[in-house]
Amino acid sequence: MRPGANGVGRRPARCNSVVRVNDVRPPLHPSVAALRKAVRDAIAGTASTPSRDVAGADLLVALSGGADSLALAAAAAFEAAKVGLRAGAVIVDHGLQPGSADVAARAADQARALGLDPVLVRVVEVGSEGGPEAAARAARYTALDAARVEVGASLVLLAHTLDDQAETVLLGLARGSGTGSLQGMAPVSGALLRPLLGIRRSQTREACAAEGLEPWHDPHNTDDAYARVRVRERVLPVLEAELGPGIAEALARTADAAREDADAFEEMIEETIEELVEHAEAGISVSAGALAANPAALRQRIIRYIVQSEFGVSLTRSQTIEVARLVTDWAGQGPIDLPGLTASRHAGRIVFAAR
Amino acid sequence: MRPGANGVGRRPARCNSVVRVNDVRPPLHPSVAALRKAVRDAIAGTASTPSRDVAGADLLVALSGGADSLALAAAAAFEAAKVGLRAGAVIVDHGLQPGSADVAARAADQARALGLDPVLVRVVEVGSEGGPEAAARAARYTALDAARVEVGASLVLLAHTLDDQAETVLLGLARGSGTGSLQGMAPVSGALLRPLLGIRRSQTREACAAEGLEPWHDPHNTDDAYARVRVRERVLPVLEAELGPGIAEALARTADAAREDADAFEEMIEETIEELVEHAEAGISVSAGALAANPAALRQRIIRYIVQSEFGVSLTRSQTIEVARLVTDWAGQGPIDLPGLTASRHAGRIVFAAR
Repeated sequence: MRPGANGVGRRPARCNSVVRVNDVRPPLHPSVAALRKAVRDAIAGTASTPSRDVAGADLLVALSGGADSLALAAAAAFEAAKVGLRAGAVIVDHGLQPGSADVAARAADQARALGLDPVLVRVVEVGSEGGPEAAARAARYTALDAARVEVGASLVLLAHTLDDQAETVLLGLARGSGTGSLQGMAPVSGALLRPLLGIRRSQTREACAAEGLEPWHDPHNTDDAYARVRVRERVLPVLEAELGPGIAEALARTADAAREDADAFEEMIEETIEELVEHAEAGISVSAGALAANPAALRQRIIRYIVQSEFGVSLTRSQTIEVARLVTDWAGQGPIDLPGLTASRHAGRIVFAAR
Repeated sequence: MRPGANGVGRRPARCNSVVRVNDVRPPLHPSVAALRKAVRDAIAGTASTPSRDVAGADLLVALSGGADSLALAAAAAFEAAKVGLRAGAVIVDHGLQPGSADVAARAADQARALGLDPVLVRVVEVGSEGGPEAAARAARYTALDAARVEVGASLVLLAHTLDDQAETVLLGLARGSGTGSLQGMAPVSGALLRPLLGIRRSQTREACAAEGLEPWHDPHNTDDAYARVRVRERVLPVLEAELGPGIAEALARTADAAREDADAFEEMIEETIEELVEHAEAGISVSAGALAANPAALRQRIIRYIVQSEFGVSLTRSQTIEVARLVTDWAGQGPIDLPGLTASRHAGRIVFAAR
């Protein structure tokens, strides 16, 4: 397709910063239009930062060079210019694959050709904590935020699509640690914006093709050592075939609903947690009677909230339920060993103490 | 396997009503033991009804003759006898397949051979409302409850397994109408008890084999016109292969958590709904300000609750969100058409009225 196009330069979109309403132009590809609208809606109301440093930007696009982030970069360059926002790009080189520096340099060229400025390439050191995927993610998000602060931007745009969201929900479902693990990714999370959560991956590919952008194909995206790749390549297609198209959208809607549920429970807990807990030498405690008066869903979330916020430990569903039994099935049982702490019942209170 | 055994009579379990602690018996098959324990836990605390009508029973097993309900019937006969409860069986003949009367009669023989008494066979007329599966289910549950009342039983035991639960969650997920559709089946629902929700289907088959019970193989169970069959035969095996064993258990845990969440939200709504709504000639209304003060998850559930309880209509997620926009994105928009009703905003209230 489009022989000779290398995705850099000579693109019709280059002239997009000049918008004339009556321009005679070829009709916009529907996928390009859909991506632009998604970005437009997401950045609506974003204010340009007052200090217009020459190297500064109002927003940064996190770019890998893959179809999703490349199509996002094109849409963001176009829409930011329309509303007078300065859009830059940041490319994180994880150094995990041979030639990763070349991939990053090529993506940087593409970003510059799209009119994004500044374009930052950041090389990160990926540790090993929590496994290779989690370590790479942690390093990436740290680098993205550092880049954002460096250029004075208020936002970083991430290119996660509806397909990514559906995969995340299925992976959460496979863990089975409760409805909280079905939340997927939030459209807004601090300075991170995910404008493409309603856009299919097929649309980002179409948008790239329509705009003459040549995406990089990450070999990790087809490496079936990753659970996410197996979900993408083998699980979702079977679900679509057997339960009808629309399953990815259904999973994404489930994520939205699960996130709303989680927000509601969090709000309830934050309203009451200070009255519920007592800090003492022996640890933090909560009244068994108060826990008993709450429905199970809230009781268990209060237990998880305390353990997470006080000990940084994320309890599984079965651990949480075992602690809850100190309230609901109290028969004098002894302390419950949890990772790094114990939970026990004393004088009508559930006490959490470090081991 | 076991040529000549027809699942009726001559079973070691026949003598189970006489329990001698020091009996020398072959070791109990683990699946038989697991089913018995599941039934024992579920019926613990069930009181025998005072009127010991000769044709009466304390509990009924809903029996199809398939492996799940046959294994349940065996476990229930054994465990009920141990605690002095009278256990009967009820077989519903839906009349949907040729020879269904023979299938019912054979299941009734098996039930009697297990010592269940009384054994009722009920022929039902399946309508068409809501599709063939829903109509058959409605007719079945009506017949089960009528049989329960007839024999004076307090419980009907249903044989849904963990696999059924996992399938139900996946089917709910495919609808994508929110976390409420992930609840699966409740272990206790009125007089209905589902003791096997923690038991795998493979265990019921093993239990039947170990006890010399020959289950009926329902041809509907392999008819891939049913979404449930496709989930069972094609979707779950792929999920297990790609995401590891334990996926069915993870789905079942998700159902438990979703049910707890739903219970908690329901409790909150029931506590506040009477203060929130106002009935008038024009319809039922709720203050937009009160809805706005609630988190999205609760706001949307209040909307669904009102529409369900007043109009018997179950709103989809997108319909619900459209109504919620009358609260959250109010810009003078007109009435929203819903199935059988309209929702509109007047004088700071959201008004629901029949069309």
